[in-house]
Amino acid sequence: MRATVMYAAGDVRVEEFLDPVIEQPTDAVVRVVRSCICGSDLHPYHKRTAADGRTTMGHEFVGIVEDIGDDVTTVKPGDFVIGPFAWSDGTCEFCREGLQTSCVHGGFWNNGRGVLGGQAEAVRVPQADGTLVAVPGVDESSPLLPSLLTLSDVYGTGWHAAVRAGVTEGDTVVVVGDGAVGLLCVLSARRLGAERIILMGRHEDRTELGRRFGATDVVSQRGEEGIAAVRELTPDGYGAKRVLEAVGYAPAFEQAIGVVRPGGVISRVGVPQYVEAPVGGPVFYRNVTVTGGPAPVRAYIEHLLPSVLDGSVDPGLVFDRTIALEDVADGYRAMDGREALKVMIA
Amino acid sequence: MRATVMYAAGDVRVEEFLDPVIEQPTDAVVRVVRSCICGSDLHPYHKRTAADGRTTMGHEFVGIVEDIGDDVTTVKPGDFVIGPFAWSDGTCEFCREGLQTSCVHGGFWNNGRGVLGGQAEAVRVPQADGTLVAVPGVDESSPLLPSLLTLSDVYGTGWHAAVRAGVTEGDTVVVVGDGAVGLLCVLSARRLGAERIILMGRHEDRTELGRRFGATDVVSQRGEEGIAAVRELTPDGYGAKRVLEAVGYAPAFEQAIGVVRPGGVISRVGVPQYVEAPVGGPVFYRNVTVTGGPAPVRAYIEHLLPSVLDGSVDPGLVFDRTIALEDVADGYRAMDGREALKVMIA
Repeated sequence: MRATVMYAAGDVRVEEFLDPVIEQPTDAVVRVVRSCICGSDLHPYHKRTAADGRTTMGHEFVGIVEDIGDDVTTVKPGDFVIGPFAWSDGTCEFCREGLQTSCVHGGFWNNGRGVLGGQAEAVRVPQADGTLVAVPGVDESSPLLPSLLTLSDVYGTGWHAAVRAGVTEGDTVVVVGDGAVGLLCVLSARRLGAERIILMGRHEDRTELGRRFGATDVVSQRGEEGIAAVRELTPDGYGAKRVLEAVGYAPAFEQAIGVVRPGGVISRVGVPQYVEAPVGGPVFYRNVTVTGGPAPVRAYIEHLLPSVLDGSVDPGLVFDRTIALEDVADGYRAMDGREALKVMIA
Repeated sequence: MRATVMYAAGDVRVEEFLDPVIEQPTDAVVRVVRSCICGSDLHPYHKRTAADGRTTMGHEFVGIVEDIGDDVTTVKPGDFVIGPFAWSDGTCEFCREGLQTSCVHGGFWNNGRGVLGGQAEAVRVPQADGTLVAVPGVDESSPLLPSLLTLSDVYGTGWHAAVRAGVTEGDTVVVVGDGAVGLLCVLSARRLGAERIILMGRHEDRTELGRRFGATDVVSQRGEEGIAAVRELTPDGYGAKRVLEAVGYAPAFEQAIGVVRPGGVISRVGVPQYVEAPVGGPVFYRNVTVTGGPAPVRAYIEHLLPSVLDGSVDPGLVFDRTIALEDVADGYRAMDGREALKVMIA
């Protein structure tokens, strides 16, 4: 089978691999129907060195179960499944608390320990019972594939940001970032009842989609100017109680600090590209809470699935380009160059 | 009247000032019965330069109302009152939410704008209605004065740490720091139902008091060794869900990161002596929440007062030395030299 390999920054190829097989009784093998490129894949696309060694890529996919290990009971060959961006046993204390990204038997794709990535024709899925969610009645011709695919990461990640921020009926929410996760933070905040949603982003086609998802205001300025513009939109200029940070770069976190109200929450789901951040000053003095992390999307799939299946939400709109696996390098280029918001691999 | 003045690091004096008078109709003047030196007063005691100019000191006091402005209705001359470490109007949206330290008409003592400190014979209290809490039936001869005085800061601050961390029945809690606030974090966590309370501190007389307040374990090691020792005490070595950081120095925050469980909370009430902190790595990847800030102690006084009045708690035990105002410089020296845990000024 073919799979995506990154050799170093900017160097993405498609190569032949042995077909994945069941290695553990808890494994499943899934034929990938749709996968995609994540904003977080762009970090190694910028930074990875040849010395880091090559790695397969991809952690978002939907597909059809081809084979299962002896211990697998919740999915069977032929099932259409959603694969979350982390695998998890579903039984440990963290999984039971809904924090599957900290599962004691869990892990992440492309981990260098024999679990390859989802930008491929097939994947081996460890801990299949805890990880995969079968979706009865859906097959590979479904028009819902893009939206179902967002449940493997970006919709669940936006949802996590909003849940962790405590978004509730009538809230004013600021979303920092107009990437796919930022836009799905908007959708999630709206679904949780936010009344005013201010989206900070400067790509008009993206912020337009943000409005469609529920943003009531768009602020395109950045830095101090952007902070001032957002604050002006909030009652008495105090800022917003809930700020969802969907970028991961230090300036985005600083913008979040600038627009959060005293006593408010900054919920981070953009993978931090910084080690240290200024949480000693106004974050402390204004009793601001900083929360978030890698979304346990597995915890949210059952909850979010019905609204995807009945069409009341359409998170799949974040995909604005579809490519074939052999063109994956073009997909990376397009996302890196901001020509595409999010690229689906069919 | 006499008041405490800091000229620069290590240089604390008692000087004569004009008696405070009502300046605004919302003011009260309070004769100070007991005040004290705060751990946070040691920061300027270490750092303040002559170029910063002199400042009065002190933000914790109990006393007797001597005079009130025309608009003051909740306290009257002769009332025994507790003065929180920040003043607040009690009516703005932040006060109504219980975040009095962000009151839009509030402020802090020794602000350089005519509001002097509490380590004095008398203080002018702005926003007296929102700020002061009268305690009927108590006078200046009460044996409860030390415990009542802790409601002006350190008990309320420990309580804030525990409340913000979400401490609840049966929890495992780690408290970083064995100063007065750390010890009252222990007491607060115990009152909120924590079952296991691990106190990180290396001053045996203090940790002994911590045990009396409810600590079940004491870890005296610091750094990696301290982290390992704490983790060993927690189920499966995962760390504690609730970590209360009552120091403010970077290494204490790093210890908190080291002992917190995935999905857990670090609640900070030690005034940060750092600007940046490492919240980009394990804090994010383990979905750890960082919260806390200057405690709105005013929000907690009514709730904590009954247990102080009926003697079911004795937070005043943190005072291990009492001095006269003229000896305040000795008090600073004793706290700075760790000869005294917390110094009361009578």
